[in-house]
Amino acid sequence: MGEFLKVLSYAEAIQRLKEALSGAGQEECPIQQSRGRVVSGQLNSPEDMPAFNRSTVDGYALCAQDSFGASESLPAFFRLVGTVPMGAVPAFALNSGECAWIPTGGMLPTGSDAALMVEYTEKLGDDTVLAYRPVSPGENVMQTGEDISRGQSLFPPGHVLRPQDIGLLASLGITTVPVVKPYQVGIISSGDEVIPIEEYPQPGQVRDVNSYSLAAMVAGMGHNPHSYPLVGDDAEQLQAMVAKSLDSNQITLLSGGSSVGVADLTLDVLLSFPGSELLFHGLAVKPGKPTLAVKIGDRLVIGLPGHPVSALMMFMVIARPLLDSRKHYTLYACLTQNIASQPGRDDFVPVSLAEEAGQWSARPLLGKSGLMGILARADGYIHIRAVEQGLNNGAVCSVCLF
Amino acid sequence: MGEFLKVLSYAEAIQRLKEALSGAGQEECPIQQSRGRVVSGQLNSPEDMPAFNRSTVDGYALCAQDSFGASESLPAFFRLVGTVPMGAVPAFALNSGECAWIPTGGMLPTGSDAALMVEYTEKLGDDTVLAYRPVSPGENVMQTGEDISRGQSLFPPGHVLRPQDIGLLASLGITTVPVVKPYQVGIISSGDEVIPIEEYPQPGQVRDVNSYSLAAMVAGMGHNPHSYPLVGDDAEQLQAMVAKSLDSNQITLLSGGSSVGVADLTLDVLLSFPGSELLFHGLAVKPGKPTLAVKIGDRLVIGLPGHPVSALMMFMVIARPLLDSRKHYTLYACLTQNIASQPGRDDFVPVSLAEEAGQWSARPLLGKSGLMGILARADGYIHIRAVEQGLNNGAVCSVCLF
Repeated sequence: MGEFLKVLSYAEAIQRLKEALSGAGQEECPIQQSRGRVVSGQLNSPEDMPAFNRSTVDGYALCAQDSFGASESLPAFFRLVGTVPMGAVPAFALNSGECAWIPTGGMLPTGSDAALMVEYTEKLGDDTVLAYRPVSPGENVMQTGEDISRGQSLFPPGHVLRPQDIGLLASLGITTVPVVKPYQVGIISSGDEVIPIEEYPQPGQVRDVNSYSLAAMVAGMGHNPHSYPLVGDDAEQLQAMVAKSLDSNQITLLSGGSSVGVADLTLDVLLSFPGSELLFHGLAVKPGKPTLAVKIGDRLVIGLPGHPVSALMMFMVIARPLLDSRKHYTLYACLTQNIASQPGRDDFVPVSLAEEAGQWSARPLLGKSGLMGILARADGYIHIRAVEQGLNNGAVCSVCLF
Repeated sequence: MGEFLKVLSYAEAIQRLKEALSGAGQEECPIQQSRGRVVSGQLNSPEDMPAFNRSTVDGYALCAQDSFGASESLPAFFRLVGTVPMGAVPAFALNSGECAWIPTGGMLPTGSDAALMVEYTEKLGDDTVLAYRPVSPGENVMQTGEDISRGQSLFPPGHVLRPQDIGLLASLGITTVPVVKPYQVGIISSGDEVIPIEEYPQPGQVRDVNSYSLAAMVAGMGHNPHSYPLVGDDAEQLQAMVAKSLDSNQITLLSGGSSVGVADLTLDVLLSFPGSELLFHGLAVKPGKPTLAVKIGDRLVIGLPGHPVSALMMFMVIARPLLDSRKHYTLYACLTQNIASQPGRDDFVPVSLAEEAGQWSARPLLGKSGLMGILARADGYIHIRAVEQGLNNGAVCSVCLF
């Protein structure tokens, strides 16, 4: 167990968690309910869109070559041989020098490769059309498969479906989509000092924050949180509650019990389960050093610090790469003050953002680590890497948005 | 009606919609279900956090002034008069020259204003403590209300609750929160050419995309969409379906029917309702020129283009400021090519983003306006303002993320 007592880098921790976490499986989801769901496999188009060469204008379908050289003074003559019906395949083909009336959205008849807008034509009697302009092949035509071609990749596995993606699926007649099942996530807050939020804390007591904030974060990542009743710093109680959570959740988040004596108790309880394996205990990060993880069979237990700010930050840092498939766009911002950081440790510092003249600035929200109000004022956080001694005022930093 | 036939700027359109839209009311929501909900009124803290001066270390509570000048060679002497109990108010006060043992989280007794870490002290017998370092007033103490003070603003109206915000509410014992009720939003797709997505389109037919993509977008903004059955280009059918939607929805989104003849039919139907008032008909934007809005009593009907890409883009452009309270962070990116734009018209161009060396670049996704695949490849869109003739390759543009 010796090697696990050394603190681990957060990146290595994420890697171990990834390897330990079993897949959640997949299910078929009607597209109406698929917003925010994660595509579970490669999704290709079942058909061409459009399914045929389609005119994008009202005018005449013709062979472009027959129009070359046409002008106001020297129009090209076409024999009008029919009308393309809206909503049906034209029953005729065009020969050289022939044209057919075509409405917007109509299907180009065989033998034609372009459409000439009606504005540039004149009808002469019943069966002759003068073209005052040439068109090039393909002009005013959307080609078969030009938008999406049959077999083309629509979305890779892991893609999170947005409204426009659902629109694309609808347009291709895809009514259900294979998506990743959400994880069931048990949440247990522990600690003798933690009381239900309905109660008024005596000195030394704190209300249970983590059951609420972690559940909201898990739900926001698309998984199903289940919060269990509070547990004191008691091995038997903790053991019973963890066992209950392991029964019905792939992942259990345990918060609290990270002070020295209690951490040992937590670890002892977790390692007492048959098939348990310590993944890590202690991370080289701030905040959140006492974070730990144990694999129990195919289940995962992550022990987070009891402090609400640390618990939330650590969950964000190590769980996002694991549980959140949404695309998070890094935002670049100028730091408004120096931040010192201890080398050898990854620091995650909450920041608030301000926008001025096409530029974001990030103000680090420093303060005593107890300040819950800080996270509520933060827009995101910056990462000071272990190799850095800090960041300077004015430095461009990448902000992970909450 | 003359003035309404002139096309309107999109900003003016948003303004008219805002003025016409009635509030959705408010409701009380348990914090467990409040993620993503919009705070409906000013929310202030009911109490101080912490509720008392709290030690952040294990050590001795004392009056800082008594420690001034203390050093390794010349320690200050304190009389130890008690132990601060964890989870209770100390039953004693300190006089000058006195100290008391205090655990992390313990409440400072009256007469003390700082805590000295145990590491810098030595106990001499039962009732004397040597301090080898001075502390300044407030050192190692979190003051009453330092995190959040009673009456302090927690969240302004319109704030969308995130996990950390829910955590803050929990820590203050706030169990329910007043939030804005979601709007009920009816969605009607119309057009003779529109078929259910389960069917295979004949030439000239298209599957119903808008019922799905608009519903997903409405739901993503936190409102309740309800999609109605498809309607053909028939005044009576349309009138009946709109009447049905008006019955139970504050907002009705009508898509399709924007080609010249059909648009008149749509407008006639909407204006035939008693109490109807045309807000606008036609916007100086691309895509989405034929967008219209009618107020009917206290209900709002927005007519969107039938084309799925235009419908979605227009809904995003004019409905976000109205219906979406989430904070959308503008991302600055370098354009990868020139884009031309017609002055006098606001252009909204989908872009895909790439990140390299701390810099985002935005590639405009241009193409025939029919391309549904474009939006699925886009990360967001840029806005070319009506006063601009386009944007140059390399220009820094602000990207609205989807």
